[in-house]
Amino acid sequence: MAEKITPRSENYSDWYIDIVTQAKLADYSPVRGSMVIRPRGYAIWEKVQSALDTMFKETGHENAYFPLLIPEEFMRREAEHVEGFAPELAVVTHGGGQELDEPLVIRPTSETIIWSMYKKWIQSYRDLPLLINQWANVMRWEKRTRLFLRTSEFLWQEGHTAHATAEEAEEETKTMLNVYKTFAEEYMALPVLTGVKSENEKFAGAIDTYAIEALMQDGKALQAGTSHFLGQNFAKAFDVSFQNKEGKLEHVWASSWGVSTRLIGALIMAHSDDSGLVLPPRLAPTKVAVVPIFRNKTKEQVMAYAEKIFGEIKEEVGGLPKSVILDTDEQNSPGWKFAEYEMLGVPVRVEIGPRDMENNKVMVVRRDTKEKILMDASEAPAKIPRLLEEIQQGLFQKAKAFREENSRTAESYDEFREIFSGDGGKGFVTAAWNGDPAVEDRIKGETKATIRVLPFGNEEEARGKTCIFTGEPAKHMAVFARAY
Amino acid sequence: MAEKITPRSENYSDWYIDIVTQAKLADYSPVRGSMVIRPRGYAIWEKVQSALDTMFKETGHENAYFPLLIPEEFMRREAEHVEGFAPELAVVTHGGGQELDEPLVIRPTSETIIWSMYKKWIQSYRDLPLLINQWANVMRWEKRTRLFLRTSEFLWQEGHTAHATAEEAEEETKTMLNVYKTFAEEYMALPVLTGVKSENEKFAGAIDTYAIEALMQDGKALQAGTSHFLGQNFAKAFDVSFQNKEGKLEHVWASSWGVSTRLIGALIMAHSDDSGLVLPPRLAPTKVAVVPIFRNKTKEQVMAYAEKIFGEIKEEVGGLPKSVILDTDEQNSPGWKFAEYEMLGVPVRVEIGPRDMENNKVMVVRRDTKEKILMDASEAPAKIPRLLEEIQQGLFQKAKAFREENSRTAESYDEFREIFSGDGGKGFVTAAWNGDPAVEDRIKGETKATIRVLPFGNEEEARGKTCIFTGEPAKHMAVFARAY
Repeated sequence: MAEKITPRSENYSDWYIDIVTQAKLADYSPVRGSMVIRPRGYAIWEKVQSALDTMFKETGHENAYFPLLIPEEFMRREAEHVEGFAPELAVVTHGGGQELDEPLVIRPTSETIIWSMYKKWIQSYRDLPLLINQWANVMRWEKRTRLFLRTSEFLWQEGHTAHATAEEAEEETKTMLNVYKTFAEEYMALPVLTGVKSENEKFAGAIDTYAIEALMQDGKALQAGTSHFLGQNFAKAFDVSFQNKEGKLEHVWASSWGVSTRLIGALIMAHSDDSGLVLPPRLAPTKVAVVPIFRNKTKEQVMAYAEKIFGEIKEEVGGLPKSVILDTDEQNSPGWKFAEYEMLGVPVRVEIGPRDMENNKVMVVRRDTKEKILMDASEAPAKIPRLLEEIQQGLFQKAKAFREENSRTAESYDEFREIFSGDGGKGFVTAAWNGDPAVEDRIKGETKATIRVLPFGNEEEARGKTCIFTGEPAKHMAVFARAY
Repeated sequence: MAEKITPRSENYSDWYIDIVTQAKLADYSPVRGSMVIRPRGYAIWEKVQSALDTMFKETGHENAYFPLLIPEEFMRREAEHVEGFAPELAVVTHGGGQELDEPLVIRPTSETIIWSMYKKWIQSYRDLPLLINQWANVMRWEKRTRLFLRTSEFLWQEGHTAHATAEEAEEETKTMLNVYKTFAEEYMALPVLTGVKSENEKFAGAIDTYAIEALMQDGKALQAGTSHFLGQNFAKAFDVSFQNKEGKLEHVWASSWGVSTRLIGALIMAHSDDSGLVLPPRLAPTKVAVVPIFRNKTKEQVMAYAEKIFGEIKEEVGGLPKSVILDTDEQNSPGWKFAEYEMLGVPVRVEIGPRDMENNKVMVVRRDTKEKILMDASEAPAKIPRLLEEIQQGLFQKAKAFREENSRTAESYDEFREIFSGDGGKGFVTAAWNGDPAVEDRIKGETKATIRVLPFGNEEEARGKTCIFTGEPAKHMAVFARAY
């Protein structure tokens, strides 16, 4: 039986960790900062991978694999890159029983090693664009970690593309941001803001970082994916140039983009409740659990009836073998099982007892709203796929309504400070800002709020407005929040 | 245009590397011993993963992910394990700018970290069996490396299972060996011998190692997959015990099993020829390439005709977007393209020229035999899937015939030495052996041949026979070969 979950109202952080551990999604490992992704968590990651990988291939990308270890010297070739990542590196100094001549670092991201290969592969405009993605583990030595949200080692995908012009590379950067937005909204049921990052928050080595930002139930923002326009920074650092159509040598233009197992943390925090995990059906490894309810004398009949309906539901819902399950276990009571499937986030539960059987009915229970729907047994299998779709849409609408309730505009710094007083998250707050990084730093110090995105087109909305922090003319309408 | 490939007869090693690099399957990286798997190579690995992963799930396994880094002390807990792997470890000594209190090693294999977690997860017989697989990168510091066949970092899957009894763990070990055999034969078109490894060749920490062994075209053997019965070795090293049905505490029984990107090396060496890569259709990312042949005045018509047939073939063959391609490029000549698709190992090429169009014909060319088959355009789309299957079976039969021609029994050590005189591989040689590891070592020193497997049931065949190396009573009919 599931242990008790800490209610969100009592302690949101404990609630989150209770869900991760009690739904057996992940566990602490003996290696500080590294987690174990358990089968139930990994099955969600496989669903994420499968959906994203299809979208990457549809947009012309291919997968490849580059080395885990990177010569330390490579990291130093791009000034901002090394400044950003040096404090987080894990360093291999010995291999095969000997000290290495040059230390190797475990990749925190792969721009450097990949661009060292692109130098070999790119000579002419005919070699461009080069559209490569990698599914891999990366390592960033973190002091404070939290399962899925921030761990030293994590799994991710990183796209690295090379282009003949700045325009093409920027277009790719935006295309992939939109892939992420579509994925977040249509699969994760998670509405996201998009826009550009401020100088303080952008990727170390990028010209511009675009991001998708989601709001968690505690009112804190979570950066769920980033797409970077790298300009010619890495092409220059690794001397990658190409002969253009006119026969002239030019440096190559680049993008990179990634999402990680952090998405699973976002998924949990966006939708789950005090009974356990709530998963959007499109990412749920098990979508339907059929639970027969019987005593000794009704067992045989109820089981046969449940098996028949289970088979029909399976046929309608489709998917992998575990997509629909029949729980034939006799050790645990039906009540125990109901609580367990709520904990595990199975979107639909079908209860079948002796009375249901007599009346040709089944009881269908939604995980998200806990609504119970008595259905004709003959109609349930065809109705359940539609119900799953309804749950998917319902979760998105609920998250969207929550975000709207928790989005406001601050007209003065007093109002801004008032919103961000006290503990916890406070939603998204839009404010006119003069564009000065030093001001952003000061606001962060005073309120713990940072700029999550500068929405596309925000400059025009800022025209004629006054920065609420300095009284100077505003350059941006920036969206602030406290963030994970 | 593809550069010239070294013929097999001239230098088999150079031939292999030429194919890997010119078919753009992999490339050398700036990190000694690590390779880059390029998109064409990785696409084959994705096919391998997809087929195996389905088979793992059908046999009840789930995927999970464990940390890359392992406390060095864990490796020392199992005496044989550390002895086997210590010389190959890469060691992380610094993280986040500080020296670590305890060094961490990059996993060379994950028994130790996984069994440290199993201790947390297994208490009772109800927690068993635990059937987990991991897709991951591992690192074994190698002095001499060769693309795909032996690299310091490689990609693999490693299954790690926990059981209540020795019998169950042994059965699992054999089940997975059979999964590997089925995969090798049905997907890779590669006949394999199965059996037990000798003491000298078994996994460091196993009671028994089972293996599949394939024969390459140069007469050398290649170990293509292993499945280990680990007994209670790791359960004891990590103190993992469970309460059995009778309420008594017992140590858990284990298996582990893995195959790696080495399989791609085997695939290349088993089937390819002096024109380039030959791939079995079930693992070929692109199965059919349609090449229109036209001059300026016929271009429009031929292209329209080719597009129509391409669409029909695509519909019949199915699969991922790149499974069937239409080559509309106008820069390169048809002859160049034919050579290129031979180099890349596309199993079927369809040539469509103006005369074919007039006669409602297409020219279908097999990559494996280079046979040209003129087909009616209306029949080709339906015939091509059958042809692909014929190629798949043909490659298997050819490889099997080659193995049979290169398998013999040596009745004396003179005969054995005669076979293994000179350079190169010499096929599989069965010989009666007394079972003494020191004798095996001596034979290796004198002939470079090692025991690849002790086939199941070989002990009975050895009964009454005399060891050809010592004149003592034989214990085994062992299969020897020189090996990769």
